[in-house]
Amino acid sequence: MANYEFGAGIWMFQQFVDRYATDAYGPPVSTLEAIEKAARVGYIKCLDINYPFAGEGVTVEQVKETLQKTGIRAQAITPHIYMREYQKGSFTNPDPAVRRRTIELGKTAIDIAHQLDAKYVKFWPGQDGFDYPFQVDYAKLWDYSVSGVREVAQTDSTMQFAIEYKEKEPRNRMFFSSAARTLLAIEDMGVNNVGIVLDSGHSSFAKETPAEVVQLVARRGKLVSVEVNDNWREWDDDMTFGSVHLTEALEFMQALRKINWQGPILLDQFPFREDSIKAAQLSIETIKALDGILDRMDLAALEAAQDRQDALEAQKIVLQTLLGVKLLAHQD
Amino acid sequence: MANYEFGAGIWMFQQFVDRYATDAYGPPVSTLEAIEKAARVGYIKCLDINYPFAGEGVTVEQVKETLQKTGIRAQAITPHIYMREYQKGSFTNPDPAVRRRTIELGKTAIDIAHQLDAKYVKFWPGQDGFDYPFQVDYAKLWDYSVSGVREVAQTDSTMQFAIEYKEKEPRNRMFFSSAARTLLAIEDMGVNNVGIVLDSGHSSFAKETPAEVVQLVARRGKLVSVEVNDNWREWDDDMTFGSVHLTEALEFMQALRKINWQGPILLDQFPFREDSIKAAQLSIETIKALDGILDRMDLAALEAAQDRQDALEAQKIVLQTLLGVKLLAHQD
Amino acid sequence: MANYEFGAGIWMFQQFVDRYATDAYGPPVSTLEAIEKAARVGYIKCLDINYPFAGEGVTVEQVKETLQKTGIRAQAITPHIYMREYQKGSFTNPDPAVRRRTIELGKTAIDIAHQLDAKYVKFWPGQDGFDYPFQVDYAKLWDYSVSGVREVAQTDSTMQFAIEYKEKEPRNRMFFSSAARTLLAIEDMGVNNVGIVLDSGHSSFAKETPAEVVQLVARRGKLVSVEVNDNWREWDDDMTFGSVHLTEALEFMQALRKINWQGPILLDQFPFREDSIKAAQLSIETIKALDGILDRMDLAALEAAQDRQDALEAQKIVLQTLLGVKLLAHQD
Amino acid sequence: MANYEFGAGIWMFQQFVDRYATDAYGPPVSTLEAIEKAARVGYIKCLDINYPFAGEGVTVEQVKETLQKTGIRAQAITPHIYMREYQKGSFTNPDPAVRRRTIELGKTAIDIAHQLDAKYVKFWPGQDGFDYPFQVDYAKLWDYSVSGVREVAQTDSTMQFAIEYKEKEPRNRMFFSSAARTLLAIEDMGVNNVGIVLDSGHSSFAKETPAEVVQLVARRGKLVSVEVNDNWREWDDDMTFGSVHLTEALEFMQALRKINWQGPILLDQFPFREDSIKAAQLSIETIKALDGILDRMDLAALEAAQDRQDALEAQKIVLQTLLGVKLLAHQD
Repeated sequence: MANYEFGAGIWMFQQFVDRYATDAYGPPVSTLEAIEKAARVGYIKCLDINYPFAGEGVTVEQVKETLQKTGIRAQAITPHIYMREYQKGSFTNPDPAVRRRTIELGKTAIDIAHQLDAKYVKFWPGQDGFDYPFQVDYAKLWDYSVSGVREVAQTDSTMQFAIEYKEKEPRNRMFFSSAARTLLAIEDMGVNNVGIVLDSGHSSFAKETPAEVVQLVARRGKLVSVEVNDNWREWDDDMTFGSVHLTEALEFMQALRKINWQGPILLDQFPFREDSIKAAQLSIETIKALDGILDRMDLAALEAAQDRQDALEAQKIVLQTLLGVKLLAHQD
Repeated sequence: MANYEFGAGIWMFQQFVDRYATDAYGPPVSTLEAIEKAARVGYIKCLDINYPFAGEGVTVEQVKETLQKTGIRAQAITPHIYMREYQKGSFTNPDPAVRRRTIELGKTAIDIAHQLDAKYVKFWPGQDGFDYPFQVDYAKLWDYSVSGVREVAQTDSTMQFAIEYKEKEPRNRMFFSSAARTLLAIEDMGVNNVGIVLDSGHSSFAKETPAEVVQLVARRGKLVSVEVNDNWREWDDDMTFGSVHLTEALEFMQALRKINWQGPILLDQFPFREDSIKAAQLSIETIKALDGILDRMDLAALEAAQDRQDALEAQKIVLQTLLGVKLLAHQD
Repeated sequence: MANYEFGAGIWMFQQFVDRYATDAYGPPVSTLEAIEKAARVGYIKCLDINYPFAGEGVTVEQVKETLQKTGIRAQAITPHIYMREYQKGSFTNPDPAVRRRTIELGKTAIDIAHQLDAKYVKFWPGQDGFDYPFQVDYAKLWDYSVSGVREVAQTDSTMQFAIEYKEKEPRNRMFFSSAARTLLAIEDMGVNNVGIVLDSGHSSFAKETPAEVVQLVARRGKLVSVEVNDNWREWDDDMTFGSVHLTEALEFMQALRKINWQGPILLDQFPFREDSIKAAQLSIETIKALDGILDRMDLAALEAAQDRQDALEAQKIVLQTLLGVKLLAHQD
Repeated sequence: MANYEFGAGIWMFQQFVDRYATDAYGPPVSTLEAIEKAARVGYIKCLDINYPFAGEGVTVEQVKETLQKTGIRAQAITPHIYMREYQKGSFTNPDPAVRRRTIELGKTAIDIAHQLDAKYVKFWPGQDGFDYPFQVDYAKLWDYSVSGVREVAQTDSTMQFAIEYKEKEPRNRMFFSSAARTLLAIEDMGVNNVGIVLDSGHSSFAKETPAEVVQLVARRGKLVSVEVNDNWREWDDDMTFGSVHLTEALEFMQALRKINWQGPILLDQFPFREDSIKAAQLSIETIKALDGILDRMDLAALEAAQDRQDALEAQKIVLQTLLGVKLLAHQD
């Protein structure tokens, strides 16, 4: 049993809204309330916390106190660079003043991260990219992205930074769209304190193989954080882990073992119509169950099958362990 | 030149929000202000208007006056059956009280439609469907959908109703997902005042061929309204018409001629980061331009090519007219 | 335990080729050899057999003998209406002579079906459709498809016919693309001996929900046959059942119970690089394992959750049974 | 006018087969006949030629003669590493003997390339990858791919090599799946004579933006060749250029100008049911027409719009030039 620590993006305990239910799926939830809600899950040890905080006049001090009270720590600070002000982009905004504000907010996020003893500052540049053909000069977008993140990263070499990529949404096409592209952009930054948040759902949605890509990023020393969820592979549905792709969820858990992942596993879910606490519990218990299955799996046999790239034998071994049945499939 | 009348869903002139820019992409816009904004487009003759109206205490009287003042008429009334209250479904909500409220709101919409002299009441049941495997009893969903819409439709045989289908969003899977499914459900309703809103974007996103499906629906006498926009075919991006799929936009315009469409063409766009008025103008002028191209196209030659199902000759004819160049492609 | 009978499309035991490995993935396999190979699976009781038969001069008599010898029966006859001769369409070919030949081949297939005592003649019109925008007159395609299948069906009211729909391949867009469209086209045929082959993979690839659609088709009395496989949802990969979408495979098995499916379950797989016999065994044993899981599932609790459309509770019940673990997820 | 030279993959003039029309879409065509067919297009100046050659006993000498006779030159040699023998992989085959043969065939291809004075040897490792979850050890796949291509490249530092990536087909998941991944793998090779073939269709199918990615690859000095075609974005349909995505085709042409592309533009098409010569002519004349449109486009205005990332203004400029109409869209 790998004995992972669990965490979550704090947003999963807050208010959800979308373009249709504009009156939101529930009442507003302040950062402080969300921490307390997270604590009720029972497994959550750390949170990725958005800054600015939600709620009238909530201070860093109050957040710190609530964290201490609940026994939860700040794992990451994620600045809100995708609100109205940044609707045309954060690092890649056509307006230099907004690009400047993005960098300033990034620096403030570093400060908050230090105050809350967070492990990294996360950038999720959901508004960076484009919507229409011919809308942008792609080379300029690349330069803005690279130089913007670099500038923030260079202000504090003691802080770790991480980019969370996604193919789309809210932009029709996001700039940081895949693991490989993000690795190339990080290379171009020429700094060594910027890495990647590997979100299993973003990965499968980007037509990647999550279990493959998490190893690729780790091999290059750029894996800062792991977030999990599931989706129907056409959109970032942010469902409970393993709810659609159970076998691949198991394969992802095995990949975490292969890279000897020691960090926490963070949930990134949007349970619009569900109870957030139960949604968190279900994902975490599924992760534990899948990890337990790995304990029972004949890994030597699996490895032998993989050495032969024998799809059927690998499937048989996996299904047998997953379903707890003996499959004959005797003929070869 | 087909001389179409143009209209729009009123929402394209209102406030946009999504799950990330929760502070919205702009300020709130009341129904009255939105009508005035629509009038500034210059081409808009009618609107699909949501009910309840947006804005503190806006009355039917006020809406009527603003319409008269601007010379715009109400084409449709679309009740808000996808707000917080209906987050777990409208016609298919598990709670009979919410299903009841949906039907009552539908009846109120009929009343509003009569008062504003609108041509039809539109149902867009975006919250009807499911998110997860195993979440629902599909047969029950079908029964709820069919009986719910039927009940509203039966209360007023003088009113026309129309269902707008979409594959997904906000639900991961919407119940009314394709033209053919919706036609089957309408059959099951056993009433003759329920039809379909064919949204070209929803159609191409549903892996349909919009130019084909609009003819299929028309042939069955169920085409109530036509809405247009474009997208990247993976999501309902609600972009300007023809911005991604220009050739298919032209083909759709030809299909409208084939069915001799006399109704207005309504825009269904969400210009999150763009000026709504310009976005409307661009779509409408593109439609006019494409329709003008049809005037210049050698339709007899195209028909002959289609009789032979000759893809290259059809492409050649279309590209020649679209691009205004002579293409040789002499060898056959 | 539902005690299903198992069958397969005979092609899964024959030679595979594609546009790259034009020298094929293995040697040619005659119809007679394929039957014998199918027998070696151990579970196969019936086959969907292509006509014309594969192999130099293979006769109906020989096929009949081989079937008797192996204890396998012919479940369906599927005429080859997608070979070179039909590359531009079978029922919808622009050339009336080819449309005629399609109908004649359909009639011959009836004759073969009678001789082999097959339950139905299957049409898989993979070449009917189009590749390019503007290539065809869609209304004409509809008429050709409807009248063509009708004509064959009318020649023998004692024979059952079934259409297998798929979104694409080999055509970029196939005419019979979804269950609902096919149901509408069958309505237009006005005959009652034409139904549908529900292929779970084609269904999930067409953005349908297989467990939903199989019930829809059954409710309308048009479910003639059930074929199973799995894919990555972007293409008809024809993989072993449950290999990618295990939870939905289980949901599909439950749907078969709901409609009280008594017919056989046929495999439709293309194990290009795998052993066909083992691929068949693995799918069938997976089906049996999933069916066994249904026996252990708390269906009353699941139904109660579905009555509330409670996604998380349904997931919890399903995962608990599937993985054989207790999931707490205590908070509601 | 950019005055591009045109070429093609020779396969577009040969025989097509797929898994359904196993008797092929037409008769076999030898390499020599295919060259002559290519010459009949009228625009084709160079070819990407597969090795081993098609046709009984065709020699390098004969190919050279036919090239001279037709005035066509060999642009690239593409070894057949995706036939039956390589069905389980070429560079990544589990069997070291097959990996060895792949490398040997690569070396032979170098020799042929020298004899025919070709510019590069192309690797299209369509069988390298996997089909099922859990089938392979991904790290091993990466190592095999990197070390295999490196080994061939190191045998001849005077020869240029190029990898053509694609997301899938024939493998359900190909190893070299995107531009960015391929760039990373090339980095790992540590040689400087391996680059990329940017196929516009593979790029749009891989959820990339072709106009963006061609610049990204060029900026890194790895753009060896440009191939074009179009598809429906779910599969490698290999249709004529611009037939589905006309606006993006124009954007791609502009990107070629931006990088000052001096090499030829090669067609990569599979006109299964169409005349190959006409299919080539149509694509080339479309390219020329689009390039001519760029001459007439107000690039300064477009650049100004792109500086503001103004989607609507950019669209307006593009549509005006493309359609040859004046669009007002006056309000801003």
